[in-house]
Amino acid sequence: MSGKILFQCDYNEGAHSKVLERLIATNMEQTVGYGEDPYCSAAAAKIREKCGNEDLAVHFLVGGTQTNMTVIDAALRSHQGVLCAHTGHINVHETGAVEAYGHKVLGLPSGDGKITAAQVEAAYWSHVNNDSFEHTVQPKMVYISHPTELGTIYSKDELTALSKVCRERGFYLFMDGARLGYALAAPDNDLTMADIAELCDVFYIGGTKVGALFGEAVVISNAELKQDFRYHIKQKGGMLAKGRLLGLQFDALFTDGLYEEIAAHAISLAEKLRAAFDAKGYPYLVPNRTNQIFVILPDADLDKLSEKFGFCYDSRVDETHSAVRFCTSWATKEENLKALTDALKEL
Amino acid sequence: MSGKILFQCDYNEGAHSKVLERLIATNMEQTVGYGEDPYCSAAAAKIREKCGNEDLAVHFLVGGTQTNMTVIDAALRSHQGVLCAHTGHINVHETGAVEAYGHKVLGLPSGDGKITAAQVEAAYWSHVNNDSFEHTVQPKMVYISHPTELGTIYSKDELTALSKVCRERGFYLFMDGARLGYALAAPDNDLTMADIAELCDVFYIGGTKVGALFGEAVVISNAELKQDFRYHIKQKGGMLAKGRLLGLQFDALFTDGLYEEIAAHAISLAEKLRAAFDAKGYPYLVPNRTNQIFVILPDADLDKLSEKFGFCYDSRVDETHSAVRFCTSWATKEENLKALTDALKEL
Amino acid sequence: MSGKILFQCDYNEGAHSKVLERLIATNMEQTVGYGEDPYCSAAAAKIREKCGNEDLAVHFLVGGTQTNMTVIDAALRSHQGVLCAHTGHINVHETGAVEAYGHKVLGLPSGDGKITAAQVEAAYWSHVNNDSFEHTVQPKMVYISHPTELGTIYSKDELTALSKVCRERGFYLFMDGARLGYALAAPDNDLTMADIAELCDVFYIGGTKVGALFGEAVVISNAELKQDFRYHIKQKGGMLAKGRLLGLQFDALFTDGLYEEIAAHAISLAEKLRAAFDAKGYPYLVPNRTNQIFVILPDADLDKLSEKFGFCYDSRVDETHSAVRFCTSWATKEENLKALTDALKEL
Amino acid sequence: MSGKILFQCDYNEGAHSKVLERLIATNMEQTVGYGEDPYCSAAAAKIREKCGNEDLAVHFLVGGTQTNMTVIDAALRSHQGVLCAHTGHINVHETGAVEAYGHKVLGLPSGDGKITAAQVEAAYWSHVNNDSFEHTVQPKMVYISHPTELGTIYSKDELTALSKVCRERGFYLFMDGARLGYALAAPDNDLTMADIAELCDVFYIGGTKVGALFGEAVVISNAELKQDFRYHIKQKGGMLAKGRLLGLQFDALFTDGLYEEIAAHAISLAEKLRAAFDAKGYPYLVPNRTNQIFVILPDADLDKLSEKFGFCYDSRVDETHSAVRFCTSWATKEENLKALTDALKEL
Repeated sequence: MSGKILFQCDYNEGAHSKVLERLIATNMEQTVGYGEDPYCSAAAAKIREKCGNEDLAVHFLVGGTQTNMTVIDAALRSHQGVLCAHTGHINVHETGAVEAYGHKVLGLPSGDGKITAAQVEAAYWSHVNNDSFEHTVQPKMVYISHPTELGTIYSKDELTALSKVCRERGFYLFMDGARLGYALAAPDNDLTMADIAELCDVFYIGGTKVGALFGEAVVISNAELKQDFRYHIKQKGGMLAKGRLLGLQFDALFTDGLYEEIAAHAISLAEKLRAAFDAKGYPYLVPNRTNQIFVILPDADLDKLSEKFGFCYDSRVDETHSAVRFCTSWATKEENLKALTDALKEL
Repeated sequence: MSGKILFQCDYNEGAHSKVLERLIATNMEQTVGYGEDPYCSAAAAKIREKCGNEDLAVHFLVGGTQTNMTVIDAALRSHQGVLCAHTGHINVHETGAVEAYGHKVLGLPSGDGKITAAQVEAAYWSHVNNDSFEHTVQPKMVYISHPTELGTIYSKDELTALSKVCRERGFYLFMDGARLGYALAAPDNDLTMADIAELCDVFYIGGTKVGALFGEAVVISNAELKQDFRYHIKQKGGMLAKGRLLGLQFDALFTDGLYEEIAAHAISLAEKLRAAFDAKGYPYLVPNRTNQIFVILPDADLDKLSEKFGFCYDSRVDETHSAVRFCTSWATKEENLKALTDALKEL
Repeated sequence: MSGKILFQCDYNEGAHSKVLERLIATNMEQTVGYGEDPYCSAAAAKIREKCGNEDLAVHFLVGGTQTNMTVIDAALRSHQGVLCAHTGHINVHETGAVEAYGHKVLGLPSGDGKITAAQVEAAYWSHVNNDSFEHTVQPKMVYISHPTELGTIYSKDELTALSKVCRERGFYLFMDGARLGYALAAPDNDLTMADIAELCDVFYIGGTKVGALFGEAVVISNAELKQDFRYHIKQKGGMLAKGRLLGLQFDALFTDGLYEEIAAHAISLAEKLRAAFDAKGYPYLVPNRTNQIFVILPDADLDKLSEKFGFCYDSRVDETHSAVRFCTSWATKEENLKALTDALKEL
Repeated sequence: MSGKILFQCDYNEGAHSKVLERLIATNMEQTVGYGEDPYCSAAAAKIREKCGNEDLAVHFLVGGTQTNMTVIDAALRSHQGVLCAHTGHINVHETGAVEAYGHKVLGLPSGDGKITAAQVEAAYWSHVNNDSFEHTVQPKMVYISHPTELGTIYSKDELTALSKVCRERGFYLFMDGARLGYALAAPDNDLTMADIAELCDVFYIGGTKVGALFGEAVVISNAELKQDFRYHIKQKGGMLAKGRLLGLQFDALFTDGLYEEIAAHAISLAEKLRAAFDAKGYPYLVPNRTNQIFVILPDADLDKLSEKFGFCYDSRVDETHSAVRFCTSWATKEENLKALTDALKEL
């Protein structure tokens, strides 16, 4: 609409054509509401199969903030809080949605958007060894995003270590997978969705940023968290009347490997874009291989690029350089990516 | 899917074809997110025009419970509550979403789903004349649904009287218009959308049940309520990443009178269905002329009907009779309605 | 101070002399804070002994509203609510303190301030049989006050039946005993504190209205509710820095039967006052035998009485009669009671 | 009770004798409840006079956490948060009481427990210049403690600068004065209570730690914050039934300069204790001149001291040294202080 080619985020377009086609094909069918229709059941079954676990509870919500606040408030009692990287989305970018339901977000220092098992272990001991522990919020859940807000991912070893400490210390491990597809498609990834389902108590599979119009699929393995979950969805305004819209979209995404295929497309283009930045010698805020690239450019180059391209301003690095974010996605066109890499060459 | 023809609610199908076409036509366009795109602006402008007021703030949210909790929590300070009919949706059908944000719902008795200006006036005096008024929740908002949960509507006189008492007593008047189109199309309606915008401090125009896949358009006239409203949308999980999906749908609904046209279709079929019930001599739980019909049938007749038709069980009336709800909607097909009225004749 | 003799409530004076003496005697002793001092331990031990159960958790809080909101929010998850008589203190007289922590109060009809096991059973079935049960708040706790806000008490049979249904249906039973002493001292009482400890999951023993300057002793028998309770006390602002002030007062009240003795004094005077009302033929709002008397008088008589005596206006009964509340307490002087009964005779 | 002399906090004893005497003298008087008695009025008048402002609203609450959560939740709308030093009591030592009412605490870095006007100004711009500002909590209040949790105090210049930026940027300035007396009595103090009343929108005068059994006097100058404040006190469980107990204590403290006198006593002893630490060459965690001393000692010396004295462990400094807190108070006896300084000499 702006005339520019947008790389600022991964939600600038609508839905993948196969997703949209399912909505069109079923539009005038009659189904019951609130997620109790056959399309939601079918999508849930496919997700359970992909995770290799018949016992998982699967629910479909509309967006990421809604999912985070619903999962966290469903899990915690009123005196409990959630540990996360201080850069975590719930801590800095959701207008206090978690606090609005009464829970403190307990930020941990992080340079790359990730937290470690050692930090969680230390947080546990810091709490229980405090003489006045009852005067402080009890940590009970660990929230991680994967990829993180900085585009980094957890290795299988790292996630296994986090999972272990959480189980030892009685913490729930919750993974925000708003961009999960892009983590799983990253060249340096060694995790499967089945691993994640096994290592986390609850996680979600992002649809909004990976091919759907909207929608996040919550997958719960811990029985304590399964109980009464639909009450929480309703209470938090997340129970879509025409719930089948969510089921249909995830059913399409989990048919014939579409979710993996379109995530791989985004990653492939991101790698090309990284190569173009590398060729210019631009440094990165944090190195990573998912669909978000945080790169540092001279302001003059950014001014030039901004005539034709949209990107996301992140932070000032020094008097003449800034960090910005470029995103590819399932929807990014090869020709648009080429226009950008060409423009980079010309700088 | 069930093989039955469903009349149980007005959200059994997808979206009106003209709405869906807009989504398809724009699917791969790139726009900015979070409702700051041109389609949301265009839809807001059309709604302002329909309301005859350039100063109205218009925001688009996903669903009804979400909209109710967002508007109410945005308006109230922590010691304040909201008056409504004890049958009000917020009081009985939203899993305590309003209380979850800290506000008491103050139910008033009602036989037909409506409350009166006199009840609101009495609630005001009951509060301020209470010696211990500070020991009770301060009423600050009046919530009405229009049509109500029982399908009844407010007349212009009734709404004017409510508006007057609210302004005199410092209460915000909030109308839940999840089915607003069906109220405006009712044969006994004498209110325009412009009247509603003038008489209420905030109301919303339901899309989910009137032709959209999902979506509610919040219209705010009171300047106090306009301030900072987008923070509340975000905090409550209602800020859709691809916000244009909402703008596009409302733009379609408010183009060439589509919203009125499809609501009128539903009402026309509801009138035919009422005539069929009248012909059988079935009484109504509450008489009304919108798209929901609460009718009392012998259980034997209901058993018979339920073989082919879906409807919504409401309540037991006596040992052999029950009240049930039949809904028509923008999506109801003439042929399906005829199948139902034929079946009624055969009972 | 007003020159009138006050009968309007049971908190017009300070503390019983034996309670005050304990505070004076220990004033300059040094102890640790926050309720972890020896006086709190001693008082808790005496309460456990009185209840005949070594496993009870006992905590001391400052006031009734604080105790109600702390117990209820500690017990409930966010989608759960608390059933009570619509006249219950938490529903009408605590400025929405329970809702402020996110929980809906689910009022049940009551003429005398009490609710029945049958009502609780019906509420259970009404919830689970609702097709949309997840759209409604899940009842999880039953709150009763004893004596009730109308001065009535539960019999052992009634409390046993409530306890039974709560255990069968998975509800916590919580008794607000802000005036518990006066219930136990009532002529028609057949419950002991041990019975109450056995039948309820949690209850409290009111000090504020029964001889202490302030303070409520929470007694928890259900292990689920014991866990982490001190976090909730702190979070709700109820953890008194000089916690020993609470321990000392309850220690005094539970030494040599003081609590029972002073409650019996109040009841004895209430019975005399009731006899005086009976002699005049005044009817009661609700008949009862605790320290609160809700009696209906001609307005002219009330005007006359109000010249010398303070009482609490309750409600208008008809054009010339009103219901008012007279309270006796541990502090009521025989001579003041006599002045009132003499004045009644003269009317 | 422990046989040790306690210096760990300033709430180990009861109340100053003059305070206690007032409670004893009035014990059997009858007054109305909930802070509407003549003693509360009298105390409020004395506080207003001390602040040199007849228009101040004065309310009495029981404790610090309760006061913090009440003031903050009364002031903020649901999307707003409170800025404070990351060491602020509300951020680390109140079990998330502020979050429990829905508000995020926005911690700012601080080495000495204080924050600066420049930090507040920067926080303002950081918020409003954020492209996604509506996705973040809106800062609306600045919370400072005075003395801070590290015993430091604000100078008049510093507080004036904070006040100025708050007024320019639309933030409420709230001072937690749980130990206010000890700040005003510090040798390096240049603020009066009248200055504080003028520069802050709301502050409180701590009683619990300065001579009362319990109690905090909230002083409100900003008209927006005065409105409906008693509703919030009640809702948060802070409205003491026998409210006069608070009025009587503050009346005593504000008669004949008692509050200043007893604070000066504590400071005088703290200065002596500091001299004793200085003589040993012990360094301080943060230098300060109020009643809390954070001093760093060899662990061996601490072991020795702990045989006779109670103090508060703060943090490990290195393998052989720890930081600990010693407090003096209104109640500290000269002889006990001498025992401690003698013991220090012998180390």
